[in-house]
This record gives sequence, C-alpha cells and structure tokens, in this order.
Amino acid sequence: MGKRIVIALGGNALGKNLPEQMVAVKKTAKAIADLIEEGHEVVIAHGNGPQVGMLQEAMSLLTKAEPEKYVPCPLSVCVAMSQGYIGYDLQNSLREELLDRGIDKGVATVLTQVAVDQGDPAFKHPTKPIGAFMDKEEADKMAREHGYDIVEDAGRGYRRVVASPQPKEIVELSTIDALVKSDHVVVACGGGGIPVFRQENHHLKGAAAVIDKDFASELMAEDLDADVLIILTAVEKVAINFNKPDQKWLSELTPDEARKYADEGQFAPGSMLPKVQAAVKFAESKPGRTALITLLEKARDGIAGKTGTTIHL
Amino acid sequence: MGKRIVIALGGNALGKNLPEQMVAVKKTAKAIADLIEEGHEVVIAHGNGPQVGMLQEAMSLLTKAEPEKYVPCPLSVCVAMSQGYIGYDLQNSLREELLDRGIDKGVATVLTQVAVDQGDPAFKHPTKPIGAFMDKEEADKMAREHGYDIVEDAGRGYRRVVASPQPKEIVELSTIDALVKSDHVVVACGGGGIPVFRQENHHLKGAAAVIDKDFASELMAEDLDADVLIILTAVEKVAINFNKPDQKWLSELTPDEARKYADEGQFAPGSMLPKVQAAVKFAESKPGRTALITLLEKARDGIAGKTGTTIHL
Repeated sequence: MGKRIVIALGGNALGKNLPEQMVAVKKTAKAIADLIEEGHEVVIAHGNGPQVGMLQEAMSLLTKAEPEKYVPCPLSVCVAMSQGYIGYDLQNSLREELLDRGIDKGVATVLTQVAVDQGDPAFKHPTKPIGAFMDKEEADKMAREHGYDIVEDAGRGYRRVVASPQPKEIVELSTIDALVKSDHVVVACGGGGIPVFRQENHHLKGAAAVIDKDFASELMAEDLDADVLIILTAVEKVAINFNKPDQKWLSELTPDEARKYADEGQFAPGSMLPKVQAAVKFAESKPGRTALITLLEKARDGIAGKTGTTIHL
Repeated sequence: MGKRIVIALGGNALGKNLPEQMVAVKKTAKAIADLIEEGHEVVIAHGNGPQVGMLQEAMSLLTKAEPEKYVPCPLSVCVAMSQGYIGYDLQNSLREELLDRGIDKGVATVLTQVAVDQGDPAFKHPTKPIGAFMDKEEADKMAREHGYDIVEDAGRGYRRVVASPQPKEIVELSTIDALVKSDHVVVACGGGGIPVFRQENHHLKGAAAVIDKDFASELMAEDLDADVLIILTAVEKVAINFNKPDQKWLSELTPDEARKYADEGQFAPGSMLPKVQAAVKFAESKPGRTALITLLEKARDGIAGKTGTTIHL
C-alpha cells in the first residue's frame, strides 16, 4: 500500500553548481520516480548550502560594484532565490522522468517560509559559515555597517557566520497539504525554508539564519502526517565507530538506541548527528512512523526494508 | 457576485530594488486585498524587469570573478530566482494585509514555466535589452563564447538583447488551478514565466528569452477561465493622442475599436501597446470577459465600473 513519504535531499542530490546540478537532478529524479511508481505519495525537501552561498556571493559582488544602487541582500531573500533556482531544475527533471514512465502527475515548487524563535539559543552563538571569505578590513566594515557576526578561519580569512535555529512552523503548510491532496508531487522547504520571525500584526520578518533542511523536513513530515521520513546522505547505513577497525553498520534502531549512540558522540556534529536527531524526533512523534537514513539510490530498497538504517518505536 | 480576476502587476507595483520593493508591495497588497475583501478570486502575475536585470548582473559579476568555478547563469535560471525573490515579498505582504483584515486565506507562490515556440519570429530579431552595459571587448567575448546577441546603445556601451516571444502554454497550469480551487490567492507567471521550449521526450529546455508579463497574464486568464484581466499601468485610463492638446481618455472600448487605435499608432510600443494587445486578446477570447487597464489604486473602482479603460465584446 502506498505510503506518504517526505524525502530530504542533501548536497549529493543537487551538486555544487549549475552544470553539476543539471546532471545530479536527473539521477535524483529517477530515484524519486521509483518511489512514486510504487504508489507512494512524495513530498521533497532539499538543502541549498552551495547555492545560497553562490547567491550570497553574487549579491555581495553586486553591492560592492554599485554601492549607491544596491543594499546588501538579506540572507532570507537569498534563500528565496535559491528555492526558485533549485526548484526549477528539480521539478523539471522529475516531471520529465515521470512522463517518460507514463505517469502524468503535477510537480510543483512551493515557495516556503519557516518560522523560527527569536529566542532560539542558536542566535546567541551563530556557527554556520556563509558566503565568501573576506579580508579583515571588509569583515570589519560588514560587522560595523550591517551587524554581521564574523569568524576568522585560520589562514583563509574572515567569514560571516549565521545562526541555525530550530524550525517551529511551516508557514505555507496548508498550501503544501492542498497540493498533496490534489495528487501533486511537491517540492517545499527548500534550503530548510526561508527563515522568518513571527512579529506582531501578522508580520513575518526575514531572519539572518539558515535552517537545517533535515530538521525542516522532519517538521514537515510530522505536520503532513507522513508515514516515512527519508533522510538521504553519502552512506548506505548509519555506523557506529565510523571509519575505525570495529566499525559496525546499523540496520534498525529504536529512538532510545539512536539517542544513546548520539550521546556517546558516535555521530559527527553538522553531518550525521543532525540527521540522526531529526530521524529520532520523527520516529518518536507517533507510533507507526519510520525514519530511514540511506543513499539516494537505495531509497527504494530502504522503503522495502532491504537496506538503510531505519529508526522507529 | 465574486469574479475570478487575474491581475498583472507592473513595475510601479514592485519598485526597482529591494528597499523600494518592500515599500511598494505593501501598497500593492492593500489594493489586491480590497478586491479579495469584495469576494473576488484573485490570481496575481507580475513583471520582473529590474529584478531579473539585477540578478543577471550579479551572476555575471560572479562568473567574471571566478571563471573557473561558475559558468554564465542562463536567463531562464535568473527568471526562476526572480520569482522566488519577488514572490516571497509579495505573498508575505498580501498574507499580512489579509490577516489584518481578518481574512485567513492561503497565499502561495507557484514557480511557473511558460512554454514558447522555437520558431517564434521574435527569436530572429531579439530586441529586449537585459543586464548591465559592457565595453566592446567584453561584448565580443560574450557573443563569441556564449552566443549572446549584442546591440550598441549609442554612447552608453553594449548590451545583450534577448527575444520576447509569445507565451504558448503555462506548464504549471494544473497546479495554479488546484490552488485557486482550494481557496488560495496564487502568485504565478512571475516575470512572464520561466521561458522554456518543449523538446522531445518531455524535456523542457530553458530559453534565452523574456516573456511579456501582460501576454503571459492574458494566457493564464484565458486558461483559468477568468472573468476579468486587470492590467495595471501608470495611468488611470488609456488615452488617444496621448500628451497632445487633443488628448482623449477612453473609458470603454470594443476589441475592434481598440485594434483600430493600435493600428493608427496611438499606443507606444513596449509600453501601452502590448497592454492594449493583451487586453484585446482576452476580451475577444470569449463573450463575457472584460479586460481593464488602470492604476493599481483604481483597480477596485475599475472593477465597479467607475474608472479605468475596459475592453469587452
């Protein structure tokens, strides 16, 4: 029987620049079409690290070249642009792959905002580097004039860092839901969503932050009452003692087991750790929900219980 | 009784840069909310001239700064980015304005591709300038390496020109329709849509073109079986003998009358002419359909028959 699946695409599924992206999305489309062909409902979220970095860099160059004409482009706006940039390629490849298989389904990209808390502790300690390296003078100027948080990366120069807060609410949830109900494959929460703060008077204010796409996907999976959350990564299964002589691949875990390993420091922060954390959160959110961590090309086998690491109650 | 309205926003509704856009969309949101408050269904299309120019310029600077890392960004991709950029601000302002009035409706931006014909005569004579001025050396290089069409703008340097072909098909029509049916206000066909060619094997190939947003809006209005197409401009009514002593404002026209004036050269090409042409096409497409050309702040009065220029059979 068909399941409702939210799938979180990582860097490998998209490539790092335009030519890479055009090739990568074709392979990605095949893997997703495999799931749809088997009768599953699929909602797609994706990262945007290299893409939002590229846009941030391009817009910085423009502001430097024409300071009278252009103000620095807020990060939230760059995320919005990246959703257009990636969604366009992704929806096209997927629609093409589906039609090639005789499946005529709408594929749509929904520009998605995700609300975060102004009080999120991540804002006190911004850690996520974004955009190009700067020299000291430029870094000081950006800090002074635009309030950027700056870190020095030993030997390579200075870089802006932003917070990576927890997603609290998917603003366009009803839109995504309406499209899923009308038999669409939806691309949403691109780059973890455009980060916004809820203000008084219904105003949403762009936040200088990036939201982890695995956590945003997890929230979307809960809100859409999905059966499965697939988090794609560069390995077929999660391992403990990774890259050590006693490395052990994990096939099936309870949330408690996964949390125990995480507490032991088995998973790399900023890499496998947030994926396992998001998977645990989803698995715990309701009985019957399963999180699957695997490779893009193993997603179908993973859903069939043949490979990958599954986490469920 | 509520009407289904497609509204085509022009430059004045969006501003020329980010700070202008943030102010302009607030006023735009009020005018659109007025229509929704009166019970009309509204679908919004918009231009993107300054925004796509900005993105094209920023991406060119990036390619120049890091030629090993980045290839020139296709125009179709810049349009996709601009849909994210503008849609984000527009949907936010409108949602805020609606909630302030106690109206809880979904507002969604749909990334929209619009197919054009490879045989469209516009591709033989590209006329639409795009992006920044270049010197001769750079212009020659872009023409040689990337096949750009270049024109010299006397005294100001060289510029790329692209075709402005007729829109033939709105690729994401079923998505827009599904959202309208589920009570959403939809932002679609931004910048006239991402221009694509239909290829064999269901492939859509990005076209180096820009589609006139008034013609794209007209096609969308026909396809959604709208009652009214509103084309916003900088004057309250269309005039003949514009800016001459015998100038005469026009309140109501048949398609034949409008076409006669157009044939006489009464309307400026690239300005009022395409608006009147799009309006005539819509008015003629089915009895009962009305096109309205007016100012943003007069849209409500125009719908009520109090001002603006209406064209209908």
